[in-house]
Amino acid sequence: MAVEIFWGSGSPFAWSVMLAMEVKGVPYTGHLLSFSDGDLKKPEFLAMNPRGKVPVVKDGDFTIAESNAILVWLEAKAPQPALFGSNPEDTGTIWRAVLEHAAYFQHHTHAISGAVFYKKMEEKAEEVKASAKAVGEELARYEAALEKGDWLVGSAMSAADLVAYPHFELFFRLAARPEVKAFGLGFDKGWDAYPALSAWRARIKALPGYDNTYPPHWKG
Amino acid sequence: MAVEIFWGSGSPFAWSVMLAMEVKGVPYTGHLLSFSDGDLKKPEFLAMNPRGKVPVVKDGDFTIAESNAILVWLEAKAPQPALFGSNPEDTGTIWRAVLEHAAYFQHHTHAISGAVFYKKMEEKAEEVKASAKAVGEELARYEAALEKGDWLVGSAMSAADLVAYPHFELFFRLAARPEVKAFGLGFDKGWDAYPALSAWRARIKALPGYDNTYPPHWKG
Repeated sequence: MAVEIFWGSGSPFAWSVMLAMEVKGVPYTGHLLSFSDGDLKKPEFLAMNPRGKVPVVKDGDFTIAESNAILVWLEAKAPQPALFGSNPEDTGTIWRAVLEHAAYFQHHTHAISGAVFYKKMEEKAEEVKASAKAVGEELARYEAALEKGDWLVGSAMSAADLVAYPHFELFFRLAARPEVKAFGLGFDKGWDAYPALSAWRARIKALPGYDNTYPPHWKG
Repeated sequence: MAVEIFWGSGSPFAWSVMLAMEVKGVPYTGHLLSFSDGDLKKPEFLAMNPRGKVPVVKDGDFTIAESNAILVWLEAKAPQPALFGSNPEDTGTIWRAVLEHAAYFQHHTHAISGAVFYKKMEEKAEEVKASAKAVGEELARYEAALEKGDWLVGSAMSAADLVAYPHFELFFRLAARPEVKAFGLGFDKGWDAYPALSAWRARIKALPGYDNTYPPHWKG
């Protein structure tokens, strides 16, 4: 495999894919694109993904977008360690967790981050508060799950962990902004309010190759 | 397998799962739940899916929710005919199509249907029109793809077709409502504006067992 990954610093979707490649020991060449320079709207990128989103992965003549689809393809190409289980029930349960994370966590954090980035916190106050309530409920669910086990599904790390993790980082980083804190959404303590989630975060950070995936513009 | 499926009439997510079971010839017992009677909020249902959403599938002691997760589990239990391809590239590409349908079609039709059902078409006029524009662009993409082939991905029916189809039915049914037509979103001709999509619809309707999956409250 001569895998190329087109990514953006801080994209949680790209981060998940890079974590999976590190965990599986798949060598890859990264192409760091700039959101602010419009790299994702350039013709050569749109030819790979007409949606103009990262990550995109190329393996020779084969091109694929959509992070969870990339993870499935990667699992088929490099099966070990298995990230989607090894029997129908585990595979289904891991996918359930991956899809629920998108539908019930990312959906709401996306609503909040959109309001923050477009400076519409006041205008969208009602939606932002409803989403913050939903995010709080989801975080409580994850905290409860991680009080019972080291990983989100079953006894081993899975795609559920690698998909969810970057979104938690992104959300707590967002919640620490002064203008978000001023809004009183209830996440001022960040990770510290969630000890089991924090212990899981430490397990993720200890994964081999983790440092290669950390968003460069967050460093220092 | 002694599969039970808990579903609701007109749920596109449940419909996709039932189509897949019919196509694979997996016998199942359906439990038709009533949205209006609050069946999805009853404790016995919430014990299976705390999110209170259909479909939920039970197979003996194993319970699973999230329609696309159910499809993966079903594929592993009953591999033929394959709905997720038979090599890494096809599997990845089918998943890409499934996930893009959710992100770029369902996302926007959901925004429109929410405004219709909660009678907020006027209040949310700007979002509704933006979503209608996006839906029109997506439909044009699907029409173009189906002018080139019988199925959405590659040369065979796949999960991409079974996931997308019920959402198209639901959307065109919504678009035919007088109050939606009055809003001038541009879908008055329904399926007829999309000949290749209509031919694909006929192929889906000809699938064995299709009639068993048609929403009962839409009949007659």
